[in-house]
Amino acid sequence: MATIVEIDDPADPRLADYRDLRDVELRKHLEADHGLFLAEGEKVVRRAVAAGFRPRSFLMAPRWLDGLATELSASDAPCFVLSEALIEQVTGFHVHRGALASLERLPLPSVESVVEGARSVLVLEDLVDHTNVGAVFRSGAAMGFDAVLLAPRCADPLYRRSIKVGMGAVFTMPWTRLPSWPDALTSLADLGFTTVALTLAPDAVPIEDAVAGLDRVALVLGSEGHGLSARWESTAARRAIIPMAAGIDSLNVAAASAVACYVTARR
Amino acid sequence: MATIVEIDDPADPRLADYRDLRDVELRKHLEADHGLFLAEGEKVVRRAVAAGFRPRSFLMAPRWLDGLATELSASDAPCFVLSEALIEQVTGFHVHRGALASLERLPLPSVESVVEGARSVLVLEDLVDHTNVGAVFRSGAAMGFDAVLLAPRCADPLYRRSIKVGMGAVFTMPWTRLPSWPDALTSLADLGFTTVALTLAPDAVPIEDAVAGLDRVALVLGSEGHGLSARWESTAARRAIIPMAAGIDSLNVAAASAVACYVTARR
Repeated sequence: MATIVEIDDPADPRLADYRDLRDVELRKHLEADHGLFLAEGEKVVRRAVAAGFRPRSFLMAPRWLDGLATELSASDAPCFVLSEALIEQVTGFHVHRGALASLERLPLPSVESVVEGARSVLVLEDLVDHTNVGAVFRSGAAMGFDAVLLAPRCADPLYRRSIKVGMGAVFTMPWTRLPSWPDALTSLADLGFTTVALTLAPDAVPIEDAVAGLDRVALVLGSEGHGLSARWESTAARRAIIPMAAGIDSLNVAAASAVACYVTARR
Repeated sequence: MATIVEIDDPADPRLADYRDLRDVELRKHLEADHGLFLAEGEKVVRRAVAAGFRPRSFLMAPRWLDGLATELSASDAPCFVLSEALIEQVTGFHVHRGALASLERLPLPSVESVVEGARSVLVLEDLVDHTNVGAVFRSGAAMGFDAVLLAPRCADPLYRRSIKVGMGAVFTMPWTRLPSWPDALTSLADLGFTTVALTLAPDAVPIEDAVAGLDRVALVLGSEGHGLSARWESTAARRAIIPMAAGIDSLNVAAASAVACYVTARR
Protein backbone atom coordinates (compact mmCIF):
# COMPACT_ATOMS: atom_id res chain seq x y z
CA MET A 1 0.00 0.00 0.00
CA ALA A 2 1.33 3.44 -0.95
CA THR A 3 2.20 5.67 1.99
CA ILE A 4 -0.02 8.75 2.07
CA VAL A 5 2.13 11.82 2.70
CA GLU A 6 0.29 15.10 3.21
CA ILE A 7 2.38 18.07 2.11
CA ASP A 8 1.64 21.75 2.62
CA ASP A 9 4.91 23.29 1.49
CA PRO A 10 5.20 23.63 -2.30
CA ALA A 11 8.99 23.83 -1.92
CA ASP A 12 9.17 20.37 -0.34
CA PRO A 13 12.10 18.60 -2.05
CA ARG A 14 10.12 15.35 -2.32
CA LEU A 15 8.05 17.06 -5.02
CA ALA A 16 11.06 17.48 -7.33
CA ASP A 17 9.70 15.11 -10.00
CA TYR A 18 6.64 17.34 -10.50
CA ARG A 19 8.16 20.80 -10.90
CA ASP A 20 7.47 23.22 -13.75
CA LEU A 21 5.69 20.85 -16.10
CA ARG A 22 5.34 23.55 -18.75
CA ASP A 23 9.08 24.10 -19.04
CA VAL A 24 9.84 21.65 -21.84
CA GLU A 25 13.63 22.04 -21.78
CA LEU A 26 13.86 21.67 -18.03
CA ARG A 27 11.58 18.64 -18.10
CA LYS A 28 13.58 16.92 -20.84
CA HIS A 29 16.75 17.11 -18.76
CA LEU A 30 15.08 16.27 -15.49
CA GLU A 31 13.31 13.22 -16.91
CA ALA A 32 16.38 11.93 -18.75
CA ASP A 33 18.67 12.44 -15.74
CA HIS A 34 16.40 10.54 -13.40
CA GLY A 35 14.99 8.01 -15.85
CA LEU A 36 11.43 9.00 -15.08
CA PHE A 37 8.32 10.12 -16.92
CA LEU A 38 5.06 11.65 -15.80
CA ALA A 39 1.57 10.32 -16.27
CA GLU A 40 -1.23 12.89 -16.00
CA GLY A 41 -4.83 12.09 -15.23
CA GLU A 42 -6.48 9.16 -13.50
CA LYS A 43 -6.97 7.15 -16.69
CA VAL A 44 -3.41 7.64 -17.92
CA VAL A 45 -1.91 6.80 -14.51
CA ARG A 46 -3.97 3.62 -14.46
CA ARG A 47 -2.84 2.63 -17.95
CA ALA A 48 0.82 3.31 -17.15
CA VAL A 49 0.68 1.11 -14.06
CA ALA A 50 -1.24 -1.60 -15.92
CA ALA A 51 1.45 -1.55 -18.61
CA GLY A 52 4.04 -2.49 -15.99
CA PHE A 53 5.74 0.82 -15.25
CA ARG A 54 6.77 1.15 -11.62
CA PRO A 55 5.62 4.35 -9.86
CA ARG A 56 8.29 6.40 -8.08
CA SER A 57 5.51 8.42 -6.45
CA PHE A 58 1.98 9.72 -6.92
CA LEU A 59 0.77 13.28 -6.47
CA MET A 60 -2.87 14.24 -6.18
CA ALA A 61 -5.55 16.29 -4.50
CA PRO A 62 -7.54 14.38 -1.84
CA ARG A 63 -10.56 13.81 -4.07
CA TRP A 64 -8.59 11.64 -6.51
CA LEU A 65 -7.49 9.09 -3.91
CA ASP A 66 -10.55 6.87 -4.30
CA GLY A 67 -10.32 6.62 -8.08
CA LEU A 68 -6.79 5.28 -7.91
CA ALA A 69 -7.31 3.09 -4.83
CA THR A 70 -6.38 -0.09 -6.73
CA GLU A 71 -3.12 1.36 -8.05
CA LEU A 72 -2.22 2.85 -4.67
CA SER A 73 -2.84 -0.38 -2.83
CA ALA A 74 -0.59 -2.27 -5.26
CA SER A 75 2.34 0.14 -4.86
CA ASP A 76 4.87 0.89 -2.14
CA ALA A 77 5.66 4.34 -3.55
CA PRO A 78 4.70 7.46 -1.58
CA CYS A 79 1.51 9.27 -2.53
CA PHE A 80 1.85 13.02 -1.96
CA VAL A 81 -1.48 14.63 -1.19
CA LEU A 82 -1.77 18.39 -1.74
CA SER A 83 -4.52 20.92 -2.26
CA GLU A 84 -5.27 21.74 -5.89
CA ALA A 85 -3.89 25.26 -5.35
CA LEU A 86 -0.56 23.84 -4.15
CA ILE A 87 -0.42 21.38 -7.04
CA GLU A 88 -0.81 24.32 -9.37
CA GLN A 89 2.06 26.12 -7.64
CA VAL A 90 4.37 23.12 -7.96
CA THR A 91 3.54 22.06 -11.50
CA GLY A 92 2.95 25.52 -12.94
CA PHE A 93 -0.51 24.85 -14.27
CA HIS A 94 -3.97 23.72 -13.34
CA VAL A 95 -4.08 19.93 -13.44
CA HIS A 96 -7.57 19.28 -14.75
CA ARG A 97 -7.51 15.55 -14.33
CA GLY A 98 -6.26 15.79 -10.78
CA ALA A 99 -3.86 12.89 -10.41
CA LEU A 100 -0.24 12.66 -11.46
CA ALA A 101 2.32 9.91 -11.12
CA SER A 102 6.07 9.83 -11.68
CA LEU A 103 7.12 6.47 -13.09
CA GLU A 104 10.39 4.73 -13.85
CA ARG A 105 11.33 4.33 -17.48
CA LEU A 106 12.18 0.78 -18.51
CA PRO A 107 15.36 -0.09 -20.41
CA LEU A 108 14.69 0.19 -24.13
CA PRO A 109 14.40 -3.18 -25.88
CA SER A 110 16.50 -4.06 -28.91
CA VAL A 111 15.20 -3.34 -32.40
CA GLU A 112 15.28 -7.05 -33.16
CA SER A 113 13.03 -7.94 -30.23
CA VAL A 114 10.58 -5.11 -30.99
CA VAL A 115 10.09 -6.10 -34.63
CA GLU A 116 10.07 -9.86 -34.04
CA GLY A 117 6.90 -11.20 -35.59
CA ALA A 118 5.84 -7.70 -36.66
CA ARG A 119 4.32 -7.26 -40.09
CA SER A 120 3.78 -3.47 -40.09
CA VAL A 121 6.02 -1.02 -38.31
CA LEU A 122 6.30 2.77 -38.25
CA VAL A 123 9.69 4.45 -38.37
CA LEU A 124 9.83 8.08 -37.28
CA GLU A 125 12.82 10.19 -38.17
CA ASP A 126 13.19 13.56 -36.44
CA LEU A 127 9.70 14.58 -35.35
CA VAL A 128 10.06 17.51 -32.93
CA ASP A 129 6.47 17.95 -31.79
CA HIS A 130 5.28 15.75 -28.92
CA THR A 131 1.69 16.17 -30.09
CA ASN A 132 2.58 14.63 -33.43
CA VAL A 133 4.50 11.76 -31.86
CA GLY A 134 1.50 10.94 -29.67
CA ALA A 135 -0.89 11.23 -32.62
CA VAL A 136 1.24 8.89 -34.76
CA PHE A 137 1.33 6.27 -32.00
CA ARG A 138 -2.44 6.53 -31.58
CA SER A 139 -3.15 6.19 -35.30
CA GLY A 140 -0.65 3.36 -35.69
CA ALA A 141 -2.24 1.46 -32.82
CA ALA A 142 -5.73 2.05 -34.21
CA MET A 143 -4.67 0.73 -37.61
CA GLY A 144 -3.13 -2.41 -36.16
CA PHE A 145 0.54 -1.55 -36.60
CA ASP A 146 2.83 -3.77 -34.54
CA ALA A 147 5.67 -1.49 -33.47
CA VAL A 148 7.25 1.96 -33.71
CA LEU A 149 10.96 2.68 -34.19
CA LEU A 150 12.39 6.12 -33.47
CA ALA A 151 15.47 7.79 -34.90
CA PRO A 152 17.93 8.89 -32.21
CA ARG A 153 16.70 12.53 -32.36
CA CYS A 154 12.95 11.95 -32.56
CA ALA A 155 10.87 13.55 -29.79
CA ASP A 156 10.14 11.45 -26.71
CA PRO A 157 6.96 9.30 -26.72
CA LEU A 158 6.98 9.26 -22.91
CA TYR A 159 6.84 13.02 -22.65
CA ARG A 160 3.63 14.04 -20.86
CA ARG A 161 2.08 15.61 -23.96
CA SER A 162 2.89 12.63 -26.21
CA ILE A 163 1.29 10.24 -23.73
CA LYS A 164 -1.84 12.37 -23.47
CA VAL A 165 -2.36 12.79 -27.21
CA GLY A 166 -1.47 9.14 -27.77
CA MET A 167 -4.24 8.08 -25.39
CA GLY A 168 -1.90 5.60 -23.78
CA ALA A 169 -0.87 3.94 -27.06
CA VAL A 170 2.77 4.59 -26.10
CA PHE A 171 2.29 2.14 -23.21
CA THR A 172 0.82 -0.69 -25.25
CA MET A 173 2.61 -0.36 -28.59
CA PRO A 174 6.09 -1.92 -28.60
CA TRP A 175 8.68 0.72 -29.49
CA THR A 176 12.35 1.52 -29.19
CA ARG A 177 15.12 3.83 -30.45
CA LEU A 178 17.19 2.92 -33.48
CA PRO A 179 20.78 2.75 -32.21
CA SER A 180 22.24 4.42 -35.26
CA TRP A 181 20.76 6.84 -37.74
CA PRO A 182 22.68 6.58 -41.04
CA ASP A 183 22.20 2.88 -41.78
CA ALA A 184 18.90 2.41 -39.95
CA LEU A 185 16.85 1.67 -43.07
CA THR A 186 19.31 -0.80 -44.55
CA SER A 187 19.36 -2.61 -41.20
CA LEU A 188 15.59 -2.89 -41.39
CA ALA A 189 15.89 -4.30 -44.89
CA ASP A 190 18.26 -6.94 -43.47
CA LEU A 191 15.52 -7.85 -41.00
CA GLY A 192 13.16 -8.54 -43.90
CA PHE A 193 11.25 -5.25 -44.11
CA THR A 194 10.52 -3.30 -47.25
CA THR A 195 11.09 0.31 -46.19
CA VAL A 196 8.53 2.68 -47.71
CA ALA A 197 9.35 6.37 -47.19
CA LEU A 198 6.60 8.99 -47.31
CA THR A 199 8.05 11.85 -49.34
CA LEU A 200 7.42 14.36 -52.08
CA ALA A 201 10.40 13.03 -54.09
CA PRO A 202 9.86 13.07 -57.85
CA ASP A 203 9.98 9.27 -58.10
CA ALA A 204 7.42 8.72 -55.32
CA VAL A 205 4.48 6.52 -56.29
CA PRO A 206 1.00 6.58 -54.72
CA ILE A 207 1.14 4.89 -51.31
CA GLU A 208 -1.48 2.34 -52.32
CA ASP A 209 0.78 1.10 -55.14
CA ALA A 210 3.94 1.32 -53.04
CA VAL A 211 2.68 -1.12 -50.39
CA ALA A 212 0.58 -3.41 -52.59
CA GLY A 213 1.36 -7.06 -52.01
CA LEU A 214 4.20 -6.45 -49.56
CA ASP A 215 4.71 -8.73 -46.59
CA ARG A 216 6.74 -6.91 -43.92
CA VAL A 217 6.49 -3.14 -44.29
CA ALA A 218 8.34 -0.37 -42.45
CA LEU A 219 6.56 2.92 -43.12
CA VAL A 220 9.04 5.78 -42.76
CA LEU A 221 7.97 9.34 -41.80
CA GLY A 222 10.11 12.47 -41.69
CA SER A 223 10.04 15.58 -39.54
CA GLU A 224 7.35 18.27 -39.58
CA GLY A 225 9.28 21.00 -41.31
CA HIS A 226 11.64 19.50 -43.84
CA GLY A 227 10.40 15.96 -44.15
CA LEU A 228 12.84 13.10 -44.48
CA SER A 229 16.60 13.52 -44.59
CA ALA A 230 18.23 12.93 -47.96
CA ARG A 231 19.98 9.95 -46.41
CA TRP A 232 16.78 8.16 -45.41
CA GLU A 233 14.96 9.23 -48.54
CA SER A 234 17.63 7.62 -50.70
CA THR A 235 18.19 4.49 -48.60
CA ALA A 236 14.49 3.60 -48.39
CA ALA A 237 13.53 0.77 -50.75
CA ARG A 238 10.48 2.67 -52.02
CA ARG A 239 9.31 6.27 -52.01
CA ALA A 240 5.57 6.89 -51.68
CA ILE A 241 3.24 9.85 -51.76
CA ILE A 242 -0.32 10.41 -50.62
CA PRO A 243 -2.00 11.77 -53.75
CA MET A 244 -3.18 15.33 -53.10
CA ALA A 245 -5.25 17.97 -54.85
CA ALA A 246 -3.44 20.30 -57.23
CA GLY A 247 -1.76 23.22 -55.47
CA ILE A 248 -1.55 21.50 -52.07
CA ASP A 249 1.97 20.61 -51.09
CA SER A 250 1.59 18.57 -47.97
CA LEU A 251 -0.46 17.14 -45.16
CA ASN A 252 0.31 17.53 -41.48
CA VAL A 253 2.48 14.56 -40.39
CA ALA A 254 -0.24 13.25 -38.05
CA ALA A 255 -2.83 13.31 -40.85
CA ALA A 256 -0.37 11.79 -43.33
CA SER A 257 0.53 8.99 -40.94
CA ALA A 258 -3.15 8.18 -40.33
CA VAL A 259 -3.81 7.87 -44.06
CA ALA A 260 -0.59 5.96 -44.74
CA CYS A 261 -1.25 3.53 -41.87
CA TYR A 262 -4.82 2.99 -43.08
CA VAL A 263 -3.67 2.21 -46.62
CA THR A 264 -0.76 0.04 -45.46
CA ALA A 265 -2.96 -1.94 -43.10
CA ARG A 266 -5.17 -2.83 -46.10
CA ARG A 267 -2.38 -3.87 -48.47
CA MET B 1 -0.18 52.58 -49.92
CA ALA B 2 -0.65 51.75 -46.24
CA THR B 3 0.21 54.58 -43.85
CA ILE B 4 3.16 53.66 -41.65
CA VAL B 5 2.37 54.61 -38.05
CA GLU B 6 5.17 54.20 -35.52
CA ILE B 7 3.85 53.51 -32.04
CA ASP B 8 5.79 53.39 -28.78
CA ASP B 9 2.96 53.18 -26.29
CA PRO B 10 1.59 49.64 -25.86
CA ALA B 11 -1.64 51.13 -24.46
CA ASP B 12 -2.33 53.04 -27.70
CA PRO B 13 -6.04 52.49 -28.43
CA ARG B 14 -5.35 51.95 -32.13
CA LEU B 15 -3.85 48.60 -31.16
CA ALA B 16 -7.15 47.29 -29.80
CA ASP B 17 -7.49 44.57 -32.46
CA TYR B 18 -4.26 42.94 -31.32
CA ARG B 19 -4.70 42.70 -27.58
CA ASP B 20 -4.24 39.56 -25.48
CA LEU B 21 -4.10 37.02 -28.28
CA ARG B 22 -3.84 34.14 -25.82
CA ASP B 23 -7.12 34.95 -24.10
CA VAL B 24 -9.45 32.77 -26.17
CA GLU B 25 -12.70 33.94 -24.58
CA LEU B 26 -11.82 37.61 -24.89
CA ARG B 27 -10.72 37.14 -28.49
CA LYS B 28 -13.92 35.33 -29.45
CA HIS B 29 -16.03 38.25 -28.27
CA LEU B 30 -13.72 40.93 -29.63
CA GLU B 31 -13.52 39.34 -33.07
CA ALA B 32 -17.26 38.67 -33.29
CA ASP B 33 -18.20 42.15 -32.09
CA HIS B 34 -15.98 43.87 -34.63
CA GLY B 35 -16.28 41.38 -37.47
CA LEU B 36 -12.55 40.91 -37.67
CA PHE B 37 -10.01 38.11 -37.60
CA LEU B 38 -6.25 38.02 -37.21
CA ALA B 39 -3.67 36.64 -39.58
CA GLU B 40 -0.28 35.78 -38.05
CA GLY B 41 2.94 35.50 -39.97
CA GLU B 42 4.08 36.90 -43.28
CA LYS B 43 2.88 33.95 -45.33
CA VAL B 44 -0.54 33.81 -43.71
CA VAL B 45 -1.07 37.58 -44.04
CA ARG B 46 -0.16 37.33 -47.72
CA ARG B 47 -2.59 34.47 -48.27
CA ALA B 48 -5.42 36.26 -46.47
CA VAL B 49 -4.98 39.37 -48.60
CA ALA B 50 -4.67 37.30 -51.78
CA ALA B 51 -7.94 35.56 -50.87
CA GLY B 52 -9.69 38.94 -50.92
CA PHE B 53 -9.99 39.81 -47.24
CA ARG B 54 -9.65 43.54 -46.61
CA PRO B 55 -7.07 44.54 -43.96
CA ARG B 56 -8.28 46.84 -41.17
CA SER B 57 -4.64 47.34 -40.16
CA PHE B 58 -1.23 45.68 -40.04
CA LEU B 59 1.09 45.38 -37.06
CA MET B 60 4.73 44.44 -37.31
CA ALA B 61 8.30 44.99 -36.24
CA PRO B 62 10.35 47.10 -38.67
CA ARG B 63 12.19 44.13 -40.19
CA TRP B 64 8.97 42.64 -41.59
CA LEU B 65 8.04 45.70 -43.67
CA ASP B 66 9.97 44.62 -46.75
CA GLY B 67 8.51 41.13 -46.92
CA LEU B 68 4.97 42.49 -47.07
CA ALA B 69 5.75 45.47 -49.31
CA THR B 70 3.34 44.29 -52.01
CA GLU B 71 0.43 43.88 -49.59
CA LEU B 72 1.17 47.20 -47.91
CA SER B 73 1.34 49.08 -51.18
CA ALA B 74 -2.03 47.67 -52.24
CA SER B 75 -3.81 48.68 -49.03
CA ASP B 76 -4.98 51.97 -47.51
CA ALA B 77 -5.08 50.53 -43.98
CA PRO B 78 -2.65 51.78 -41.34
CA CYS B 79 0.47 49.73 -40.63
CA PHE B 80 1.49 49.99 -36.98
CA VAL B 81 5.21 49.55 -36.50
CA LEU B 82 6.43 48.56 -33.04
CA SER B 83 9.50 46.98 -31.53
CA GLU B 84 9.25 43.22 -30.96
CA ALA B 85 9.26 43.81 -27.20
CA LEU B 86 6.23 46.11 -27.48
CA ILE B 87 4.43 43.65 -29.75
CA GLU B 88 4.92 41.04 -27.08
CA GLN B 89 3.44 43.38 -24.47
CA VAL B 90 0.36 44.08 -26.58
CA THR B 91 -0.36 40.58 -27.84
CA GLY B 92 0.76 38.72 -24.74
CA PHE B 93 3.25 36.46 -26.48
CA HIS B 94 6.32 36.38 -28.65
CA VAL B 95 5.21 36.62 -32.27
CA HIS B 96 7.74 34.38 -34.02
CA ARG B 97 6.70 35.20 -37.52
CA GLY B 98 6.78 38.92 -36.91
CA ALA B 99 3.86 40.27 -38.90
CA LEU B 100 0.19 40.42 -37.95
CA ALA B 101 -2.83 41.78 -39.74
CA SER B 102 -6.39 42.40 -38.62
CA LEU B 103 -8.81 41.73 -41.47
CA GLU B 104 -12.52 42.17 -42.05
CA ARG B 105 -14.65 39.07 -42.11
CA LEU B 106 -16.82 38.69 -45.18
CA PRO B 107 -20.55 37.98 -44.96
CA LEU B 108 -21.06 34.20 -44.92
CA PRO B 109 -22.40 32.80 -48.19
CA SER B 110 -25.52 30.65 -48.33
CA VAL B 111 -25.26 26.87 -48.05
CA GLU B 112 -26.73 26.56 -51.55
CA SER B 113 -24.04 28.74 -53.12
CA VAL B 114 -21.23 26.99 -51.25
CA VAL B 115 -22.27 23.49 -52.32
CA GLU B 116 -23.21 24.41 -55.88
CA GLY B 117 -21.26 22.11 -58.18
CA ALA B 118 -19.59 20.43 -55.18
CA ARG B 119 -19.19 16.67 -55.24
CA SER B 120 -17.56 16.12 -51.83
CA VAL B 121 -18.24 18.25 -48.77
CA LEU B 122 -17.30 18.02 -45.12
CA VAL B 123 -19.87 18.76 -42.43
CA LEU B 124 -18.53 19.48 -38.94
CA GLU B 125 -20.85 19.33 -35.97
CA ASP B 126 -19.58 20.75 -32.68
CA LEU B 127 -15.80 20.62 -32.83
CA VAL B 128 -14.45 22.72 -29.97
CA ASP B 129 -10.73 22.67 -30.71
CA HIS B 130 -9.41 25.24 -33.18
CA THR B 131 -6.43 22.99 -33.94
CA ASN B 132 -8.77 20.26 -35.09
CA VAL B 133 -10.88 22.62 -37.19
CA GLY B 134 -7.74 23.85 -38.95
CA ALA B 135 -6.45 20.30 -39.43
CA VAL B 136 -9.77 19.16 -40.95
CA PHE B 137 -9.77 22.07 -43.42
CA ARG B 138 -6.18 21.28 -44.39
CA SER B 139 -6.84 17.56 -44.93
CA GLY B 140 -10.07 18.25 -46.79
CA ALA B 141 -8.32 20.67 -49.11
CA ALA B 142 -5.45 18.22 -49.68
CA MET B 143 -7.90 15.46 -50.58
CA GLY B 144 -9.77 17.63 -53.05
CA PHE B 145 -12.93 18.25 -51.05
CA ASP B 146 -14.99 21.12 -52.43
CA ALA B 147 -16.50 22.78 -49.36
CA VAL B 148 -16.95 22.69 -45.59
CA LEU B 149 -20.20 23.29 -43.71
CA LEU B 150 -20.19 24.07 -40.00
CA ALA B 151 -22.89 23.48 -37.43
CA PRO B 152 -23.90 26.68 -35.59
CA ARG B 153 -21.75 25.81 -32.55
CA CYS B 154 -18.62 24.51 -34.31
CA ALA B 155 -15.37 26.35 -33.47
CA ASP B 156 -14.37 29.26 -35.71
CA PRO B 157 -12.18 28.49 -38.77
CA LEU B 158 -11.00 32.11 -38.82
CA TYR B 159 -9.64 31.95 -35.32
CA ARG B 160 -5.86 32.56 -35.39
CA ARG B 161 -5.00 29.00 -34.36
CA SER B 162 -7.35 27.40 -36.92
CA ILE B 163 -5.85 29.50 -39.71
CA LYS B 164 -2.31 28.58 -38.70
CA VAL B 165 -2.93 24.83 -38.46
CA GLY B 166 -5.02 24.94 -41.62
CA MET B 167 -2.08 26.45 -43.54
CA GLY B 168 -4.43 28.93 -45.15
CA ALA B 169 -6.93 26.31 -46.37
CA VAL B 170 -9.67 28.27 -44.58
CA PHE B 171 -9.07 31.11 -47.06
CA THR B 172 -9.29 29.00 -50.20
CA MET B 173 -11.84 26.34 -49.29
CA PRO B 174 -15.46 27.55 -49.65
CA TRP B 175 -17.25 27.25 -46.31
CA THR B 176 -20.20 28.57 -44.38
CA ARG B 177 -22.37 27.98 -41.31
CA LEU B 178 -25.47 25.84 -41.49
CA PRO B 179 -28.32 28.16 -40.51
CA SER B 180 -30.11 25.56 -38.43
CA TRP B 181 -28.84 22.51 -36.61
CA PRO B 182 -31.70 20.00 -36.22
CA ASP B 183 -32.65 19.53 -39.87
CA ALA B 184 -29.25 20.29 -41.39
CA LEU B 185 -28.62 16.79 -42.73
CA THR B 186 -32.08 16.38 -44.28
CA SER B 187 -31.60 19.76 -45.97
CA LEU B 188 -28.36 18.46 -47.47
CA ALA B 189 -30.21 15.36 -48.70
CA ASP B 190 -32.68 17.70 -50.43
CA LEU B 191 -29.70 19.28 -52.18
CA GLY B 192 -28.73 15.89 -53.60
CA PHE B 193 -26.08 14.77 -51.09
CA THR B 194 -25.84 11.39 -49.46
CA THR B 195 -24.90 12.20 -45.87
CA VAL B 196 -22.36 9.75 -44.43
CA ALA B 197 -21.81 10.12 -40.69
CA LEU B 198 -18.59 8.90 -39.09
CA THR B 199 -19.67 7.14 -35.90
CA LEU B 200 -19.23 4.09 -33.71
CA ALA B 201 -22.95 3.25 -34.01
CA PRO B 202 -23.68 -0.49 -34.13
CA ASP B 203 -25.03 -0.30 -37.69
CA ALA B 204 -22.01 1.60 -39.04
CA VAL B 205 -20.35 0.00 -42.06
CA PRO B 206 -16.70 0.42 -43.12
CA ILE B 207 -16.24 3.86 -44.69
CA GLU B 208 -15.01 2.33 -47.96
CA ASP B 209 -18.32 0.49 -48.38
CA ALA B 210 -20.40 3.43 -47.18
CA VAL B 211 -19.16 5.80 -49.89
CA ALA B 212 -18.69 3.29 -52.74
CA GLY B 213 -20.30 4.46 -55.95
CA LEU B 214 -21.89 7.58 -54.46
CA ASP B 215 -22.09 10.78 -56.46
CA ARG B 216 -22.49 13.75 -54.11
CA VAL B 217 -21.23 12.95 -50.61
CA ALA B 218 -21.45 14.96 -47.40
CA LEU B 219 -19.05 13.47 -44.86
CA VAL B 220 -20.29 14.27 -41.35
CA LEU B 221 -17.94 14.51 -38.34
CA GLY B 222 -18.86 14.96 -34.68
CA SER B 223 -17.15 16.68 -31.77
CA GLU B 224 -13.94 15.54 -30.09
CA GLY B 225 -15.41 14.23 -26.87
CA HIS B 226 -18.77 12.70 -27.52
CA GLY B 227 -18.83 12.37 -31.27
CA LEU B 228 -22.00 13.08 -33.19
CA SER B 229 -25.28 14.09 -31.59
CA ALA B 230 -28.02 11.45 -31.61
CA ARG B 231 -30.00 13.75 -33.88
CA TRP B 232 -27.36 13.91 -36.59
CA GLU B 233 -26.40 10.27 -36.16
CA SER B 234 -29.98 9.21 -36.81
CA THR B 235 -30.77 11.68 -39.61
CA ALA B 236 -27.65 10.83 -41.64
CA ALA B 237 -28.40 8.60 -44.63
CA ARG B 238 -25.51 6.27 -43.79
CA ARG B 239 -23.37 5.55 -40.77
CA ALA B 240 -19.74 4.66 -41.39
CA ILE B 241 -16.76 3.57 -39.32
CA ILE B 242 -13.02 3.51 -39.96
CA PRO B 243 -12.11 -0.10 -39.20
CA MET B 244 -9.76 -0.21 -36.21
CA ALA B 245 -7.66 -2.76 -34.36
CA ALA B 246 -9.34 -4.70 -31.56
CA GLY B 247 -9.40 -2.78 -28.28
CA ILE B 248 -9.01 0.68 -29.85
CA ASP B 249 -12.12 2.77 -29.56
CA SER B 250 -11.39 5.82 -31.64
CA LEU B 251 -9.08 7.99 -33.65
CA ASN B 252 -8.46 11.67 -33.04
CA VAL B 253 -10.97 13.65 -35.15
CA ALA B 254 -8.17 15.15 -37.28
CA ALA B 255 -6.74 11.71 -38.06
CA ALA B 256 -10.20 10.27 -38.69
CA SER B 257 -11.10 13.08 -41.06
CA ALA B 258 -7.86 12.62 -43.02
CA VAL B 259 -8.56 8.91 -43.51
CA ALA B 260 -12.26 9.44 -44.28
CA CYS B 261 -11.47 12.19 -46.81
CA TYR B 262 -8.83 10.01 -48.46
CA VAL B 263 -11.24 7.10 -48.81
CA THR B 264 -14.14 9.29 -49.92
CA ALA B 265 -12.00 11.05 -52.52
CA ARG B 266 -11.26 7.63 -54.06
CA ARG B 267 -14.85 6.32 -54.12
